[in-house]
Amino acid sequence: MSDKKEPIKIAVDAMGGDVGPEVTITGAAMSIKDLSNVRFLFFGNEDSIKSVLKKYPELESISDVHHCDYAISNDEKPSVALRTGRQSSMRLAINSVKEGFADCIVSAGNTGALMAMSKMILKTLPGIHRPAIASVFPTKGEDTVMLDLGANLICDEENLTQFAILGTVYSRVVKNVVNPRVALLNIGSEDMKGHEEIRAASAILSAVEFPGKYIGFIEADDIPFGKSDVVVADGFTGNIALKMAEGVAKMTGKFLKDAFNSSLMSKIGYLLSRKSILSMKDRLDPRLYNGGMFLGLNGVCVKSHGGTDELGFSNAIKVAADLVENKFNDKVAKEIEQLMSQESFITQGLSKE
Amino acid sequence: MSDKKEPIKIAVDAMGGDVGPEVTITGAAMSIKDLSNVRFLFFGNEDSIKSVLKKYPELESISDVHHCDYAISNDEKPSVALRTGRQSSMRLAINSVKEGFADCIVSAGNTGALMAMSKMILKTLPGIHRPAIASVFPTKGEDTVMLDLGANLICDEENLTQFAILGTVYSRVVKNVVNPRVALLNIGSEDMKGHEEIRAASAILSAVEFPGKYIGFIEADDIPFGKSDVVVADGFTGNIALKMAEGVAKMTGKFLKDAFNSSLMSKIGYLLSRKSILSMKDRLDPRLYNGGMFLGLNGVCVKSHGGTDELGFSNAIKVAADLVENKFNDKVAKEIEQLMSQESFITQGLSKE
Repeated sequence: MSDKKEPIKIAVDAMGGDVGPEVTITGAAMSIKDLSNVRFLFFGNEDSIKSVLKKYPELESISDVHHCDYAISNDEKPSVALRTGRQSSMRLAINSVKEGFADCIVSAGNTGALMAMSKMILKTLPGIHRPAIASVFPTKGEDTVMLDLGANLICDEENLTQFAILGTVYSRVVKNVVNPRVALLNIGSEDMKGHEEIRAASAILSAVEFPGKYIGFIEADDIPFGKSDVVVADGFTGNIALKMAEGVAKMTGKFLKDAFNSSLMSKIGYLLSRKSILSMKDRLDPRLYNGGMFLGLNGVCVKSHGGTDELGFSNAIKVAADLVENKFNDKVAKEIEQLMSQESFITQGLSKE
Repeated sequence: MSDKKEPIKIAVDAMGGDVGPEVTITGAAMSIKDLSNVRFLFFGNEDSIKSVLKKYPELESISDVHHCDYAISNDEKPSVALRTGRQSSMRLAINSVKEGFADCIVSAGNTGALMAMSKMILKTLPGIHRPAIASVFPTKGEDTVMLDLGANLICDEENLTQFAILGTVYSRVVKNVVNPRVALLNIGSEDMKGHEEIRAASAILSAVEFPGKYIGFIEADDIPFGKSDVVVADGFTGNIALKMAEGVAKMTGKFLKDAFNSSLMSKIGYLLSRKSILSMKDRLDPRLYNGGMFLGLNGVCVKSHGGTDELGFSNAIKVAADLVENKFNDKVAKEIEQLMSQESFITQGLSKE
């Protein structure tokens, strides 16, 4: 029966990222081990793409290649990319979603340019003022989704409330959490703590009905312990928190490696506990959490880390496919509509639709 | 010769923290293993203090106890504490610094109350508008000092510049870094990134001469790798970054423990590498980094984590003694005076003195 279903069509900006087709095409080849019923549209230099693609006949058989000469560089300003990048692999890949040739787009290219272009072309979902970048974060319990991670440096209470809805719907429909716990990132758990807009968002989330459970403020040290399924912050704060977590995890790994290498006895100890240590390492492998989702767009767009390898890129593809498969955007639209109609939300004077 | 020097007199709010005298007095007893030529003034319930103190005759011989009935609770609002806490152990301990009976004060009590009271009583150093909370952070290289960690949620460019000076002087005079590298915490390294006040502070730090080397913006994932000796942020961002680091370090430790416990082989592996693992654990032990310094006050005030044990509290005492020993405040005052006199600083229109 599932064979009768339309395949999920994935547009890939093959030139994005620090390496390009070698990583993006190989990543796509890895992703189809876990994805059935998908097709790919690769945008970029045809020769470079095909030279990698021919190594993977199975992938080749479900792929189309759209040649384009130009790729947006990582240091291009978003405004310049918008103006000059009309024939770029990134822009044409986004266009393919707009025009219905693809269901989602994945790129490892310039984040600012990808956000600016996808916002301009795909627009936001009705009722959503600004899209947010969201990503999944490993915790002691289930994974947590955190947003915004850098799209909106300054947010008002309505932006934060909308991010909470986006995160909640993601947690429900993709992560299958029935009643997601939602928290606002803050520097204390008391009502009076933090910036004004966070306290105002807290008041709204306490008053409205939405498909999750608002649990109040969360302090950053509670995030890794899974105290919340959804963590909401402005893009500046979220980005700092995410990068700090990445940095500390990386440094701890380095310290651990040094510890095991520090004596013959420790080396033997490592060999004996190797299996468990590696399984712990896998659990925290940043490549398995790669894929920044641009939630709130009227279309599915996922940003892969530019420096990731094929395993990381394959994960970003799976993140995009999951959003399409689970009809994430349809469900968000419905939740937003319900939210906007609520007396309490309107009373707050925040319904700008 | 060193016997001729005046002892460093340390005022301790013995009632602060989740436990009180059992931790604060025992911590003081631990600290004198590393500190010579100090004296203590303990403020709090005389009976409780003396019952612990009598276990440590060496400490008892260099201590005075000032009885007071009242202690500020952890959930007291700073404004209420200011009004009603005049006879509290915290307030009387701060007063003793103001009146010259002590050289510094250490408390594990209510952070907001401690900041409000110490600011009111001790005032800020000439030229400093707001004190910042600073703490030392372990990195792959030398320790980094990070500030503000929560005293000032919203900062302008002048506050950030002053924090940079405070951190630099600390790094020089206490950590003995000759030409400290100073960075502003931001979400990217490019000039155009981040909030306006961070970019404005960057312009000032690039223009003025100060006793460190301004290296631009730092992203949070570079902090644990020691790319900067001083990291400057507003108090909201700094607090989130610090707590995220604490949380991830704690979770990684938990994962590691689980990994070693997951099989007999891993347990044997742990026993063999135990020595190295424990030395790595010590390197990251948060108790050894305990002690939030209120830099910029006209007096030395150190806040210990409320939930720490005697080892953590003894470290906070040593942090305070280090600031006194190295005449931190005299040196900051001199640097600020030099900074204020600079043409470039005044041209920025930021000298409000």
